[in-house]
Order: sequence, then structure tokens, then C-alpha cells
Amino acid sequence: MTAYQDAMAHARQTEALAQIAGRLGWDQQTMMPRGANAQRSEEMAALEAVLHARRTDPRYGAWLQEAQAPDDVGAANLREMRRDYARNTRVPARLAAELARLTPLSHSAWEEARLADDVAAFLPWLRQMIALRREEGQAIANGGDPYDALMADYEPGTDSGTVAATFDRMRPRLVALREAVLGADSPPALTGHFPQEGQLRVSRRLAEHFGYDFTRGRIDLAVHPFSSGSGHDVRITTRVAVEEPFNCFYSTIHETGHAAYEQGVDPAFALTPIGRGVSMGVHESQSRIYENQLGRSRAFTGWLHEAMAQEFGALSVSSAEAFYAAVNRVNTGFIRTEADEIQYNLHIMLRFDLERALMRGALEAEDIEEAWNTRFALDFGYEVDKPSNGILQDVHWSIGLFGYFPTYALGNVYAGCLHTALRADIPDLDAHLAAGDTRPATLWLRDRLQRHGALRPPRDTIALACGFSPDEGPLMTYLEDKFSGLYRL
Amino acid sequence: MTAYQDAMAHARQTEALAQIAGRLGWDQQTMMPRGANAQRSEEMAALEAVLHARRTDPRYGAWLQEAQAPDDVGAANLREMRRDYARNTRVPARLAAELARLTPLSHSAWEEARLADDVAAFLPWLRQMIALRREEGQAIANGGDPYDALMADYEPGTDSGTVAATFDRMRPRLVALREAVLGADSPPALTGHFPQEGQLRVSRRLAEHFGYDFTRGRIDLAVHPFSSGSGHDVRITTRVAVEEPFNCFYSTIHETGHAAYEQGVDPAFALTPIGRGVSMGVHESQSRIYENQLGRSRAFTGWLHEAMAQEFGALSVSSAEAFYAAVNRVNTGFIRTEADEIQYNLHIMLRFDLERALMRGALEAEDIEEAWNTRFALDFGYEVDKPSNGILQDVHWSIGLFGYFPTYALGNVYAGCLHTALRADIPDLDAHLAAGDTRPATLWLRDRLQRHGALRPPRDTIALACGFSPDEGPLMTYLEDKFSGLYRL
Repeated sequence: MTAYQDAMAHARQTEALAQIAGRLGWDQQTMMPRGANAQRSEEMAALEAVLHARRTDPRYGAWLQEAQAPDDVGAANLREMRRDYARNTRVPARLAAELARLTPLSHSAWEEARLADDVAAFLPWLRQMIALRREEGQAIANGGDPYDALMADYEPGTDSGTVAATFDRMRPRLVALREAVLGADSPPALTGHFPQEGQLRVSRRLAEHFGYDFTRGRIDLAVHPFSSGSGHDVRITTRVAVEEPFNCFYSTIHETGHAAYEQGVDPAFALTPIGRGVSMGVHESQSRIYENQLGRSRAFTGWLHEAMAQEFGALSVSSAEAFYAAVNRVNTGFIRTEADEIQYNLHIMLRFDLERALMRGALEAEDIEEAWNTRFALDFGYEVDKPSNGILQDVHWSIGLFGYFPTYALGNVYAGCLHTALRADIPDLDAHLAAGDTRPATLWLRDRLQRHGALRPPRDTIALACGFSPDEGPLMTYLEDKFSGLYRL
Repeated sequence: MTAYQDAMAHARQTEALAQIAGRLGWDQQTMMPRGANAQRSEEMAALEAVLHARRTDPRYGAWLQEAQAPDDVGAANLREMRRDYARNTRVPARLAAELARLTPLSHSAWEEARLADDVAAFLPWLRQMIALRREEGQAIANGGDPYDALMADYEPGTDSGTVAATFDRMRPRLVALREAVLGADSPPALTGHFPQEGQLRVSRRLAEHFGYDFTRGRIDLAVHPFSSGSGHDVRITTRVAVEEPFNCFYSTIHETGHAAYEQGVDPAFALTPIGRGVSMGVHESQSRIYENQLGRSRAFTGWLHEAMAQEFGALSVSSAEAFYAAVNRVNTGFIRTEADEIQYNLHIMLRFDLERALMRGALEAEDIEEAWNTRFALDFGYEVDKPSNGILQDVHWSIGLFGYFPTYALGNVYAGCLHTALRADIPDLDAHLAAGDTRPATLWLRDRLQRHGALRPPRDTIALACGFSPDEGPLMTYLEDKFSGLYRL
């Protein structure tokens, strides 16, 4: 075997073990009995120790140093492996094990604190998580900015300065649009009682219509919707609130977008370093374009309107036009995952600034609730009423995901670009969407983007799919056009 | 750290990883999407390679050699670790990985072959499995008998000669009893349609009444009922046939017995070498005494009769006495897991002789169907009608479990001994069972046996719990008394 082949065989086995870790994460949030938490924490720590040892194995490092890429695919695999090796060899095994042990405990503490609206109960866990991730950020930054280093785990090839600059350009336009919309007449919301079983049936239909392959996946319930796994085992979750069916439906479409990316990668890349989505931002571009530009379009909501009427009988909004307005209604809520397309990005900017401050040591766990609430009042114009509508709403920080949030807004930016390109290529897209047929769009995305996995870096992946270099312009234009139309601005 | 502490820390992490492997096995049989099979096979092979490397790590061997037991618990841990290390260092890593890769594929092939009644489709997989397990048997036997060596994985401290001698003493008495019973008038069977949801509700009640801790477990559906996991995450499965509710109910009680053993082990032993059931035979003694001596007793079936009438309305057998007879009806069926307490042991003896011949090379895969069918006609007096009622009925061989079957009959023998001892200690047991209260018996078992885990070797574990040395006598007396009464012999 050549050094390249040795490195690839090693990485493939590591990836197989990483898939197992992912499956355990899925199990913890869907199936695991409550009393198993402490034991699971120890099991995950043992697996994390194995993964860490493999990812930092000096023999692997020697193979990577010596390896010659046989072709373009090999070069991409080497790029991924070398970046990860450099990163991982900077993290002490002790720290990796501590993070693995803390994560499920902290996650459970968050779940309970959120149900009880009890920030104080969660603070000790958050404090530990912040301390460990600060330490990890410093270790992997190698003298650079710790937050940038953490962010590069999710979005390699960017930095917080560039992101902040993009956000600075978006923000005044978003705020102006939001103010105009909230000053206009609000369309009626959809009201009613939508039983769980019916929501789950529509949910499954939505996943099918967006191309989810159930022979290689499944849908279950979880507190926080997520997608998990790669290749031939990509599972998604959703949640049900009986009076808010759009929560369930658009969560499902969102996670179907993530899953479609993983299920859509060239099978020849399975379990190799490039056999997965290239970054969280690009991942999010898929989930967001499925959810928003396709799923919340006038054309597709027409189909959903029919599907809901079939399942639930007459709806409180009876015309397709009013249904479209209800789906896209700009509300004055608190929850990121339920936010409309405009305010969603303001949610991200809030979290981005807070977590950047946290990681830099400019903010501590005990001050974060106040900082959140102050900033929220400033950005949204009203006060957070309870922690589960504020600081406790998201799972991310409980499991150590600092640096992840900005990728959601980057995903929106990328989705805006992809949407412009695919509309140009598929002029009759709306006719298909109106019939519930997303295939022209989803197959375009599979062909242009999903199947390539991590063959190219994130921005190059988007640029190749779009035919132009991505920026926030198309997203902002799309939002301004869409909401000006909806709210007759 | 002392060498003992080093060895224990190593073994604990290995056990945590083994628990993960068990969870994946559970997932494969309950939750995994069908298309994930090949990928899962690769994932399992990667984990098996890690486990094998850890179990045969020369540093671990050196610690085990040097280690001094600090106390009795330590001595027991060392006994378990040293035996496993000696065994595992005899298996080449390549062979362990091949077995791990083959197992899920062969399991799926069996599932499909069983549904299609197609032995030929399963034969290539069985042939490979036999070849690998023969090779493993030879490797671990170290010059001894390969089948005995495989059996020792499940029941250390016994050998096939001893088992054959026990079976030889049991067999004429079983055959005589079976002939007498089948010559007598047969009581009416329970007939009717029992919907899945109702069966699962009764099933959950049964698990609760037998002390299953749902905060540390869950019940799901699977093709073949099983129990999986140790300590704080012990999951069981059951299956439903709408016209045969006893199949579901007694499978559930059986698996609850297995789970109760694992859930009942002293929490101080969790994830240590003695923190689990000591052998499959002792495990089976728990599942069988729960299922048969307790669950199929006149007293407890009285409670079940009421519970079923509550759930399903009037039953085809209306008196408690007739219900007891229906539960214990000796049928002329084909399926081991549905067999009455007499014929069950004849099923085991058939498999024991066949698999012994297979492992010794006296029988090959292509001849096994004929050998099975011939022997079945001889032992049971009628012909196997289709492979799913014969050679394809059990999961075991498809996943390489040769040497496992005899532990079922050993479990029956041990259950007979435990039952005699607990009846002597709890004279009013039937009054409790008649009220659906198994606690006097299950707490006796927990205190006398379950909590000790693998502190003592299998026979010592049984002898200590019973107060006498185990043999087949109590089981045979129990069976002869019970069925003489039921069939007025």
C-alpha cells in the first residue's frame, strides 16, 4: 500500500467509528431511556477517546506527510485529512475526553432547564462547557483567534471578521425591511388544532416530496429537530406542536434538505473524507433553500394548502393566497427556529455577537441571560418573557457548539445565490412546485452541488453550482421582493 | 496506579465500547433503515477491530500478568479478565474483523430467507459463518475440542460431554412424559383475534409486574425477541402474532427475566468485568424461571386471565383453570420459542447435536436441512412442513452463535433448582402470584443471584443461590408433577 492508501484506509475506519458516534447521538435524543444518561456519557467518552487517538495517531500523520494524491479526488481527500489532522493534534486527549463526557450531561441539563425555565440550573453546565471550548479554541487556534478557530470546524475558509462584515451589510436592510413589514397590515395566522398523527402523516409526505430516501433513513420525534448520519443511514427528527403545524412541517423540510445533501453525495465517496457535506454553511444552504425558497414559495404553499385541507379538513385561511401569507407571516415571536425569513437572520446576529464575546472572555456565563435579553429588546423591539423563549431556546451551546450559529446565516446567503441560479436554469419551476413536484429543483441541487460532497472548499462549491461568486446580494433582493409583495410595501 | 488498576481502567473502557456494539445490534434489529445494512456492516467491523485490539493489547496482558487482586471482587474481576484475554489473544484480528463484517449481512440474509422459506438463499451465508466459526473454535480451543471452546464463550466451566450426559439422563424421562401427554386428552387452546396494540399494552403490564425498570430500558418490536445491554440501558424486544397472544406475552416475560438480571447487578459493578450476567445458562435460568415456573404457574395465569379479559373482553377459555391449561398446552408445533416446557428441551437437544456435528466437520451446511428434518421427525413424530418451521426458524446460526443453544436447556435445569429453593423459602408465593405480584420471587432472585453478577463462576452462582449443587432432578420432578396434574396422567 502507498502512504496515500494507508492514510485513506485509516481515515475510512475512523469515519465508520464517527458514524457510530453520530448514531449514538441520535439514539440519545430519540430512543434512549432517561436513566441511561450517565452510562451513555461514559460510553461516548470511551468512543471519543478512540476517535481522538485515531485522528492524532502519529503513524497517520506520517502517512499524510508522505502521501501523494493520485488524482483530484485524492487531492481533496488529502486536503480534508491534513486540515483535520493539524487541528486534532492540537487538542489534548484529556480535553477531548472531558468534552465527550460533559456533552450528554450538559445536554440533559439543558433539556430539563428549558422545561423548567430555570437558567440557574443550567449555568453550572454552561460554565463548564464554555471553559472547555475556550480551552479547545485556544489549543486549535495556534496563536490565532480562538473563536475563528472554532468557527473553522463548521465553516473552513472564513473568519469572524469577514462574517461580521457581511452581517454589517445585511443588517440595515433587514432592519428596514422588518420595520416596514411590522408597520404594515398583518395577514391572518393559521389557527386550529392539528393532531399529532395528522401532522406526522403530512410530514412524511413532505419528506417524500422533497426526495428523502426512507430506505436509507427514518423520521422520529425529538425535542430539537436534527439530521444525523451520512451515506446510507441518514436519519431526521421533527417535533409537533398541535396548534402550530408549520413548526413541524418546515422543520421536516429543513432537515430533509440536510439529509438530501448527505444522501445525495456520490456513493463512491462513502465513508471517505470527502463523502459528506463540505461545511455547515453549505449544509444549511440546502436545508434553507428546501425550507424557504422552495417550501415557502407561493407555488409550493399552494400544494401544501391542499394537502393540509385533505388531512385536517377546512382551514381557518381558506384561499391559497391567504395560506401563502400565513406561512410567511412575520410574527413578533421569540424562537429562532420559528422565525420568518427576515428575523431569522437577526436571531443569528444576536447569537454570533454573544458567543464571540463568550469565547473571547469578554462575557461570562452568569452575564449571558442579561446580555441576551438586552440585545433582544434592542433588535426586536420587545422583551423576552421567559428563558425558554430566550437564552434556553437553542440546544447548541449545551452541546458546545460555539461558532456554529453564523453558518445558519451564511447558509441563507448561499441559498439566495443558489436560488437565483436555479430559477435561471429552470424557468417553469413554479409549475412543478405548484403540483408538489420539487424534483427539477432538488435534482438540480443534487447534480450541481450535493453529489460532490466535500470535493471542493465551501465557497468554491457554491460558486461552481451557481456560476458566480456568492455574496449576500441575491438573498437580500429575494427577501425584499418577496416581503414587499406579501405586505404590499 | 497499580497493574490491577491499570487493567481495570482498560477493561472498563473496553466494556463501554462493547456496550456501544450491543446498542448498534439493538438498532439494527429495531430501528435501522434497510438500506443501511452494508454501511452498518463496515461500521461494526471497525468497532470490532477496535475491541479486538483492546482485548488483545499486550500492555493489557502485561498488567493482567502482574496484577494482584485487592479483594474477592478483584479476584473475580481478574479471573474474568484473564480468561477473556487468553481466549482473545488466540483469535487473529483478521478473523475477528471478518466475523464482524459477515454477521449483519448474514443476519439480513437469514431474515429474508426465512420470510421467503428459501434455504438455498441462506446457505452461502451459513457456509461462510460455519467456516469462520470453525476456524475460531480451533484457534481458541488451543488443541482442545473446538465446539467445547465455543461453548465456553457462553457457559464457562462446562463441556459438551458433561452437557451430553445431562441431556442423556433427561431425554428418556422427557420422551416418556411427552408421549403420555400427547396420548391424553388435549385441553382447548385459546382462540381469537388479539390486536397488536392490546397485546403491547398487556406486554408492558407484564414487564412492569415482573419488575422491569423502564427508566433504564424500553420495549420495541423485532423479528426475534431479545434483550440487550447492561447496567443502566437494558432494552428488550417482543413480537406480535394477532392470533397467538401467548407468543408475545411469554416472550416479553422471558426477556424481562434476562433484563432483570442485567438491571439487578450491583451498580458498584457497572461496566466492570463482573458487572453482567455470569453465563448464558445462568442468564437463561432467570428468563426461564420468570417465564415458566412463575409466569406459567396456576397462580400467575389466574392474574393474566383477568388482565386479558380486561383488555380483550370475553375469552374463548372462560375459567381460570382452563386458561392455565391453555397456557401450558402441549402442542404439536414446530417452533422452539413457542414450544411447551417439555418439548422445548427436545428442540435444544436437536440443535445441540447438529451444531456439534457442524463444528466438528461431521456435517456440512448443504446437509443440514435434511439432518434437521430427519431428526425432527424422529424426535417429534411428524414432518417439518417448511424451512421457516425448521432450519430457518432461529436467528442463532445466522449470527454465528454455535455453542449457545445448550445453555437454554442448562438454564431450564438451573431454573428448576432455583424454583425448588425459592418455594421452600417463600411458602405463600402463590398467594402473591395470584394477585399479579411477583416481587417475593423476583426480589429473592435479585438478592440471591442477580446482584452478584459474575462474582462467582456459573455453577457456584446457582449453588450459592439454591443452597445445593444443581442437577436436572428438580426440573424433571417439576415437569412431571405439573404435566401429570394438567393432563391427569
